[in-house]
Amino acid sequence: MTYCVGVLVEDGLVMIADTRTNAGLDDISTYRKLHHFNVPGERVMMLASAGNLSITQSVLSLLSEGVEGEAGEPKMRLVEAPTMFQAAQLVGRAIRRVREIEKAGFEAANLRFSVSLLFGGQIGTEPMKLYLIYSAGNFIECSGDAPFLQIGEHKYGKPILDRAVKYETDLYDALKVGLVSMDSTMRSNLGVGLPIDLAVARRNALVLEVNHRIEAGESYFHDLRERWSAALRAAHRAIPRPPYGPAEPK
Amino acid sequence: MTYCVGVLVEDGLVMIADTRTNAGLDDISTYRKLHHFNVPGERVMMLASAGNLSITQSVLSLLSEGVEGEAGEPKMRLVEAPTMFQAAQLVGRAIRRVREIEKAGFEAANLRFSVSLLFGGQIGTEPMKLYLIYSAGNFIECSGDAPFLQIGEHKYGKPILDRAVKYETDLYDALKVGLVSMDSTMRSNLGVGLPIDLAVARRNALVLEVNHRIEAGESYFHDLRERWSAALRAAHRAIPRPPYGPAEPK
Repeated sequence: MTYCVGVLVEDGLVMIADTRTNAGLDDISTYRKLHHFNVPGERVMMLASAGNLSITQSVLSLLSEGVEGEAGEPKMRLVEAPTMFQAAQLVGRAIRRVREIEKAGFEAANLRFSVSLLFGGQIGTEPMKLYLIYSAGNFIECSGDAPFLQIGEHKYGKPILDRAVKYETDLYDALKVGLVSMDSTMRSNLGVGLPIDLAVARRNALVLEVNHRIEAGESYFHDLRERWSAALRAAHRAIPRPPYGPAEPK
Repeated sequence: MTYCVGVLVEDGLVMIADTRTNAGLDDISTYRKLHHFNVPGERVMMLASAGNLSITQSVLSLLSEGVEGEAGEPKMRLVEAPTMFQAAQLVGRAIRRVREIEKAGFEAANLRFSVSLLFGGQIGTEPMKLYLIYSAGNFIECSGDAPFLQIGEHKYGKPILDRAVKYETDLYDALKVGLVSMDSTMRSNLGVGLPIDLAVARRNALVLEVNHRIEAGESYFHDLRERWSAALRAAHRAIPRPPYGPAEPK
């Protein structure tokens, strides 16, 4: 299982991804799911992946080496895409290319071709963007009304995002809420686990401001988990007793 | 969609269910999903349902009218079952009986036979029980280590239960946390909605202590939602800023 979340706020972009992969419950490994394609001063791009690991690795390799155009155009590498929209199209094309290559083998093995990607960043003076790209290579763009996108095991961590993240939210508050969302997911699904990779890009900086891996036992994240648990306990204790029962507790 | 949660704590049993049903997004209705089978002083039983409405209604009707035994035993009604375990077996048998009746029609229409039930209560001096009964009629029993069970759209509302409910939790605190869990689910999935039915049975009382429907606009539930949102906002604000970025916010 996987959980990745991207948040696009006024000040910039945050992306967070866990690293746990499994082929069955008895074969669990750590693989990086958050990747960067940067040309400092020119472009900053982040890509987080969920789904079949062989597919996402092939997609990443194609994006590094170059993807053929749909109609015989020359290969283009992700770092050469002129706009974020065209870069997202290129990622979609890479997914379709991998599907063409793997289709027969996947069908023969009765495997489902499953991949989803968060792709975000900024090129030059263009607007910063965040996209969710599906298995078919189509994609949606994050909007200010709901300034986050998720892939993988997304439900456990969605309630806190729904309540706490707005377009105006401070960049590091967005990171903090994203980490709380990741914590909620890790507690409810053991298939999502540490270490956690995270990246932050401030709007118009065209460089990664943060590129960090949270390892097990890191004090800030440990403290965040403890504080969040304590605050939730305090929060529901502060809500009055439901008035539906007998007048006094027995 | 549906969300139902049952919590079995030291002091008793709480069950909460929404009432929204839909056949497609353009055909939404209100149906009761939380049902009681009570003989005050002798037994108290609650049953909450998720899945295909025609199946759950047929299962309930069979349980009221009586289900035939597996090997020609006479029909038994749910209120006649001698123990909670045998009552849960009877519910499972009712599901299998409905499947036998509907199988051909469901297959012809390419419909999936989908139902899950929360079933809990107490009979006489027997222990109080809470079961989750699956489409196949098999079931699991709630244990003290994780004193709650959920059916339907369960992920959004699970993190708060994971953190806040223990076997020692007060009965009305369990109800309160269950309502917070319902609130989180309703915010993230519009297929789960008001009114909400809830029931509380205190251990060894053999009677429903609460049997209540929360309608839209009810002040306690409205207040709970507001307080919970405010507490969550305060909680994440109280967590220190992540130390991963530049030393000072830009």
